[in-house]
Amino acid sequence: MSNLRVTVWHEHRHEKKNPVVAGVYPKGIHGCIADFLTAAGGMDVRTATLDEPEHGLTDAVLNSTDVMTWWGHMAHDEVSDAVVAKVQKRVHQGMGLVVLHSAHFSKIFRRLMGTSCDLKWRESNDREILWITAPGHPIVQGISDHVIIAKEEMYGEYFDIPEPDETVMISSFQPGGEVFRSLVTYRRAAGRVVYFRPGHESFPTYHQKEIQQIITNAVRFAAPTPGSQPAIFGNRQPLP
Amino acid sequence: MSNLRVTVWHEHRHEKKNPVVAGVYPKGIHGCIADFLTAAGGMDVRTATLDEPEHGLTDAVLNSTDVMTWWGHMAHDEVSDAVVAKVQKRVHQGMGLVVLHSAHFSKIFRRLMGTSCDLKWRESNDREILWITAPGHPIVQGISDHVIIAKEEMYGEYFDIPEPDETVMISSFQPGGEVFRSLVTYRRAAGRVVYFRPGHESFPTYHQKEIQQIITNAVRFAAPTPGSQPAIFGNRQPLP
Amino acid sequence: MSNLRVTVWHEHRHEKKNPVVAGVYPKGIHGCIADFLTAAGGMDVRTATLDEPEHGLTDAVLNSTDVMTWWGHMAHDEVSDAVVAKVQKRVHQGMGLVVLHSAHFSKIFRRLMGTSCDLKWRESNDREILWITAPGHPIVQGISDHVIIAKEEMYGEYFDIPEPDETVMISSFQPGGEVFRSLVTYRRAAGRVVYFRPGHESFPTYHQKEIQQIITNAVRFAAPTPGSQPAIFGNRQPLP
Amino acid sequence: MSNLRVTVWHEHRHEKKNPVVAGVYPKGIHGCIADFLTAAGGMDVRTATLDEPEHGLTDAVLNSTDVMTWWGHMAHDEVSDAVVAKVQKRVHQGMGLVVLHSAHFSKIFRRLMGTSCDLKWRESNDREILWITAPGHPIVQGISDHVIIAKEEMYGEYFDIPEPDETVMISSFQPGGEVFRSLVTYRRAAGRVVYFRPGHESFPTYHQKEIQQIITNAVRFAAPTPGSQPAIFGNRQPLP
Repeated sequence: MSNLRVTVWHEHRHEKKNPVVAGVYPKGIHGCIADFLTAAGGMDVRTATLDEPEHGLTDAVLNSTDVMTWWGHMAHDEVSDAVVAKVQKRVHQGMGLVVLHSAHFSKIFRRLMGTSCDLKWRESNDREILWITAPGHPIVQGISDHVIIAKEEMYGEYFDIPEPDETVMISSFQPGGEVFRSLVTYRRAAGRVVYFRPGHESFPTYHQKEIQQIITNAVRFAAPTPGSQPAIFGNRQPLP
Repeated sequence: MSNLRVTVWHEHRHEKKNPVVAGVYPKGIHGCIADFLTAAGGMDVRTATLDEPEHGLTDAVLNSTDVMTWWGHMAHDEVSDAVVAKVQKRVHQGMGLVVLHSAHFSKIFRRLMGTSCDLKWRESNDREILWITAPGHPIVQGISDHVIIAKEEMYGEYFDIPEPDETVMISSFQPGGEVFRSLVTYRRAAGRVVYFRPGHESFPTYHQKEIQQIITNAVRFAAPTPGSQPAIFGNRQPLP
Repeated sequence: MSNLRVTVWHEHRHEKKNPVVAGVYPKGIHGCIADFLTAAGGMDVRTATLDEPEHGLTDAVLNSTDVMTWWGHMAHDEVSDAVVAKVQKRVHQGMGLVVLHSAHFSKIFRRLMGTSCDLKWRESNDREILWITAPGHPIVQGISDHVIIAKEEMYGEYFDIPEPDETVMISSFQPGGEVFRSLVTYRRAAGRVVYFRPGHESFPTYHQKEIQQIITNAVRFAAPTPGSQPAIFGNRQPLP
Repeated sequence: MSNLRVTVWHEHRHEKKNPVVAGVYPKGIHGCIADFLTAAGGMDVRTATLDEPEHGLTDAVLNSTDVMTWWGHMAHDEVSDAVVAKVQKRVHQGMGLVVLHSAHFSKIFRRLMGTSCDLKWRESNDREILWITAPGHPIVQGISDHVIIAKEEMYGEYFDIPEPDETVMISSFQPGGEVFRSLVTYRRAAGRVVYFRPGHESFPTYHQKEIQQIITNAVRFAAPTPGSQPAIFGNRQPLP
């Protein structure tokens, strides 16, 4: 089986502006994610960022990507509509998309959901506990029944997304007492979309082993079916 | 209980260009729909069309609409993005939307679904049989287990929509042998979205009693919950 | 519109054995529920309990019940399989069923779900916060975005139920930090099934106004569609 | 990766009573299925039948089965409740179950669904066309957009099952004009359940290449996640 071709897309602005973030992610969040995916094996991983031409998402890159991960926050509006439309089309054709943390508000995720994707939030040091609500699901392979993140930003319900195809993890926050559907999956045409909540830029969340395991699992889960046929549309005569 | 405030939106182009369509719907498709909804009782019905200013969908109209029906075909691209964004926001706030026939390709439906909403089609005289797949559902109240339309345009799977929240009717076409998920429902934030397939402009489909019954039921089903609270988003301090 | 015919089914054992429970619910949990449903209006409410003949669920009672609520805990196994089969059949025909708290382990709920319906639990004094995950849903009509119960027994995920049709509320527990899908809905044939978590017998949960509101809403939501047609099954000749 | 351990369960009565069926399936339906699964590779396949002790489903067999296929028709009631309970428990633990044709009425499928699983039917020579409604899904890998079976028994909606997690194929029947959700999937706890319609005993359906491909895909799709953790239930103290 050939390697999965993964593109880690990252806004890459916080690291340039905020030394705290740069300290936590010296290679950028994209560098951190690319490193642990590569180490997991079976993947050819490259990165792309907002400030590259076409945000690094040329047709050549898009057409050779099986699964894309997406992190953005402060510059969602700077992502061009043309690129978003191309990413959306690739998802429909079967490319997997793993949407991370504040990318809940990215253009691409909102387009794929059809809702506002809004939520409650609080920059704080709450303890987040993610509980598995779909044991046996491939995305939580190797995870017991919960994961604890010592300090994270709070996201709270109502999270304005369509009823998920699968709800795989739900978080609580302490001491706040909020809850959040933190790991959910959707199918959009031939493509799988996964949203995974954790990853505030000033916390070392993506250095945590269980979080790396879940993102790695999610990328593998979102892989397109090998050799799947494109859907057939348009004018059609009766079968013989 | 006060009356449901319904706006029947219609593209209203085919009737102006094609005498066959004008013959089938002398008052326009919107006139036909408005008439049978009004006759059903409990609704205050008005119409709005593409060629009116703001397509007839001013803020005043939108903010006083509980449920909107939508038919379009040849001029989807002429609907302004600004109006589409406002309709989408109203759905999120709780306004029901009943999408009819070729409006599968309308901007508003595609935005709410996140998929291409493409399908197979054939202008023909196939016999369509719609079978109930959710008996007891309010949208098929008063319908036995199927409805026959003597002549209709064919729509065939794959219909590129997200897995529906509810699949209420599935059609077969003869002699073609195609199938189609013809009556499906979704929730998008506080609003309900219903798609209902039949209604090619040159056939008298909207004059058929069972079809009128289903659309009437769908409008009532899509009504917002009275007195429902708006969702609360944004920065949030812990509960006391 | 005629009144909704509601049967409040209750195991009614804890009240007889435990003076603490009897003190909280002098008329029994069923008496408390019947009282607030009756006060809400539009319902004819009766009760039925385990120790009555046929558990109070004769054919006459079942056939004249539109919606049933169900609370049980220590005596699930004493409910006869024959009665359970009849209740299940009535649900399939359109009767609504609102399953409360420890009735997650009732025979009828397990039969309707097809899963074990198991969960984690702790008798404690945790504070439960129920957060709305489906604003605008009829079952949370009149509720803001959360409900706080000062003291409740903890139920924690994984809750072994099928992916719900709708997830309407999710709870957190403090100080434990667990989460739970507390208000979920399913359709089983023509009948609606609602599960609602709160209601440990030694706490005054069912005296709390918001909880009464939600249960009242749930009963109305679960009502069968008036005049809906029974499903048609069996050998079938082609349509003419 | 070690081989998938597959048990093909078959009622195996029609072949013994009806020479027509014996002529179509000289090795029994189970023999035919076991042969093409074995030929597909990566599977260790064994068979089990109703008339063996414990229906061939001893604890040793169950505990070493990753995926089971199930065909039954005339003797559903002869399957012991004890064996059914054990199969259901194994599904909850992660064993995949692929339910074929008339096994829609098997005890195990009805228990996992919670509905009657009833339908319309007609022994006839209708032409069945199965249309893909989820392109890119692993179960239809290698299939274009439809499959034609020249002659099959008709099954028609309403098919009394819960709203599927995924609807992958829908059939039409000609000349009857009926429709049927022919390929659907569910998750029940850690286990995947697939229902696939075709396979009347007197037609050579299971000799058709596309049907073999779909069943082979379904078995692979239903495989448990390797090394997945069992769900944790019961009394639980707060996390430290």
